[in-house]
Amino acid sequence: PAQRVSKFEQDVWSIFTPLAAETKAINLGQGFMNFGPPAVVQEAAKQALDTVEANQYSHPRGRPRLRQALAASYSPEFGRQLDPESEILVTAGANEAMFATFAGFLDEGSEVICMEPFFDQYLPNITMNGGKPVFVPLRAPEHAADQTISSEEWRLDIDELKSKITPRTKMIVLNTPHNPIGKVFSEDELRAIGKVAEEHDLIILTDEVYDRLYYPPLTKFPRIATLDGFWERTITVGSGGKSFASTGWRVGWLIGPAHLIQYSFAAQTRVVFCVNSPCQEAIAAGLEASLTQPLFQDQTKAYLTKRAKLAKVFDDLALPYTMPQGAYYILVNTAKIQYPKDYVFPDILHQRGDDFKMCYWLTKEIGVCCIPPSEFYTKDHWPLAKNYARFAFCKTDDVLDQAAERLLALK
Amino acid sequence: PAQRVSKFEQDVWSIFTPLAAETKAINLGQGFMNFGPPAVVQEAAKQALDTVEANQYSHPRGRPRLRQALAASYSPEFGRQLDPESEILVTAGANEAMFATFAGFLDEGSEVICMEPFFDQYLPNITMNGGKPVFVPLRAPEHAADQTISSEEWRLDIDELKSKITPRTKMIVLNTPHNPIGKVFSEDELRAIGKVAEEHDLIILTDEVYDRLYYPPLTKFPRIATLDGFWERTITVGSGGKSFASTGWRVGWLIGPAHLIQYSFAAQTRVVFCVNSPCQEAIAAGLEASLTQPLFQDQTKAYLTKRAKLAKVFDDLALPYTMPQGAYYILVNTAKIQYPKDYVFPDILHQRGDDFKMCYWLTKEIGVCCIPPSEFYTKDHWPLAKNYARFAFCKTDDVLDQAAERLLALK
Ligand SMILES: CSCCC(=O)C(=O)O
Ligand SMILES: CSCCC(=O)C(=O)O
Repeated sequence: PAQRVSKFEQDVWSIFTPLAAETKAINLGQGFMNFGPPAVVQEAAKQALDTVEANQYSHPRGRPRLRQALAASYSPEFGRQLDPESEILVTAGANEAMFATFAGFLDEGSEVICMEPFFDQYLPNITMNGGKPVFVPLRAPEHAADQTISSEEWRLDIDELKSKITPRTKMIVLNTPHNPIGKVFSEDELRAIGKVAEEHDLIILTDEVYDRLYYPPLTKFPRIATLDGFWERTITVGSGGKSFASTGWRVGWLIGPAHLIQYSFAAQTRVVFCVNSPCQEAIAAGLEASLTQPLFQDQTKAYLTKRAKLAKVFDDLALPYTMPQGAYYILVNTAKIQYPKDYVFPDILHQRGDDFKMCYWLTKEIGVCCIPPSEFYTKDHWPLAKNYARFAFCKTDDVLDQAAERLLALK
Repeated sequence: PAQRVSKFEQDVWSIFTPLAAETKAINLGQGFMNFGPPAVVQEAAKQALDTVEANQYSHPRGRPRLRQALAASYSPEFGRQLDPESEILVTAGANEAMFATFAGFLDEGSEVICMEPFFDQYLPNITMNGGKPVFVPLRAPEHAADQTISSEEWRLDIDELKSKITPRTKMIVLNTPHNPIGKVFSEDELRAIGKVAEEHDLIILTDEVYDRLYYPPLTKFPRIATLDGFWERTITVGSGGKSFASTGWRVGWLIGPAHLIQYSFAAQTRVVFCVNSPCQEAIAAGLEASLTQPLFQDQTKAYLTKRAKLAKVFDDLALPYTMPQGAYYILVNTAKIQYPKDYVFPDILHQRGDDFKMCYWLTKEIGVCCIPPSEFYTKDHWPLAKNYARFAFCKTDDVLDQAAERLLALK
């Protein structure tokens, strides 16, 4: 086997998702919905299935209707007229979007700066393409150990970011709204990061898959691609799955200047050739509908209720957490929860961070599945995550109520 | 940009498929159908869309129902009970299946033997993963220049294959039924290739995406994985798109021993994470139906008619061709066709093989799109393809009739 690949550990998702199913736990682990896409989207998928051509290969750049719809939806967001021919690429999910971009830009030894914690897939996505991830921390304030904070309070130290740059640095990966923290980077923070990228002529790859999910008091989602000319060096990643409750459709996209997108495109054409055709039509229909209907606004309202429901549980349990400004995860400090000292854990958990044990126990014995965030840290930094668990609230209200009931047994 | 990727030329598909559309040519180019999947498959896709869970992430190995259906359908084909947990991997199309396998097994400088002509994507799939493609020719007999032959007559010289092996050789890529030739390798040929792989401890990656499409007098499709213990070193690639007329769904699979599949799996989980969920359910339904209904037999009958229709055109034109034993392409010798000496071709064709010009002219002026097979050769060998064009017959009979009419204008 290939050196790069044979070293991979089992991914956290294929441990906890099956575990939740087997133990009949309520699954607040992996970030998928227990509800389907909006009716308009679902109907469009069925219509596409009835259209001969929409069952066959799409253009590797993506179906024209979807690229048009993305341009219509995102041009106002980006404050510029996006060209569907050259500035938009439809991808096989956001994951493959990132993979193809790393493939398109990294050479052996290229360094990529990631903020830690980071979405776990970035690492293998980078190393498989010969790159070397370099980490700069997002830090919570000290009082986060015993007080609930806003995700805003997690901070990047810009000097620390600068200190990580070498002649081999090619790219900075940004993630906003951030998974697992929920932080939405402010314009000022983005400006500071962008300026560093500019000074060192780096590409910015910004993972904005939760861009439709940010909460008051925020009234606008800041995008680094719209600031200070950073457009020219920025590739933005989006997700149909997160935007339209269809994580299993594997439709994502990239937006950026043609001179960058062309290399992600060249790579992607070789990696997957093209993307599921009928679901592209359906996501197009969703974006089209969002131009005249408050789909995303309604969705945000629904998620606000969900966030409140889950947050209340941890308030009631007096467990400090990070209140997310965006996305659909709550990162909770579990230090006060005790599992029995003599509890026997499966072997597979022993080479992992300590938080794997807590999350396993919560899944199996409390009946609520959550994700151990050490998966979002390099091994050296696993201890930073040992008192944390990530809970997802992208679930129907009744399921969140049931989860609340179970979790309150911890009191 | 990455060195490996920035050198890629534009792929042949994104030249000729849009060209066919713009010029309203009948598209016998890229191998997709102008008809949809069977009703049972289509209905199952719609039902899946109505099932909440079938719109969300699948297990990265593939949905249990599809893995079960693949095991049920392929166990008799492979003459062994396939384990859906460890010997089957669902992939984002056959292309990504190959990519993930190269990613899982190749290191910098690993050599991979491919038979030339080869399906064009193999090359970037290999080089993007650090591998080096090494070519061994499939040769047509001399009389193929002025006589129609069977695809059987294209032969691999086993000594020539052996001569290509070095200490860095990791893998042999096989393609049967072969694209673009249509050759179905005989058991004897497969045994000889397998023996070479065994002697040098090589992995065999066999692209069998057209396995459901082989024609009389063949009564059985020979699979190298079923011969002489080669199972242990063989990974077989299959395609929902080719089997169920749904090339735009991007559902493929790998079958092989757990000790090999695990590395394709490890790579794939990082490349795309998982595969379109509703379409996986639909392909499962198709495979399930094929256990009790003659779906594939009926499909083969339909394709036989199509093959006959297209072959007759070239007979009428007295153009020699290769009659394919499998798949849905006819490789035609176009030496007798003349386009006007002063015809002006777009610049983009000038850095390509001469066959690009012929195929362009046929598309634009005769109104029938076909594919220049030099794309399936390394640059040095482009001249070998200069008198050839590949025509696809995966089209409805009426479209083939129209194409016939247009082509007969060449007489
Ligand atoms: C590849 S699983 C990703 C799901 C998700 O976004 C998350 O749970 O973090
Ligand atoms: C990636 S396009 C492939 C279509 C096809 O199989 C062919 O036309 O050869």
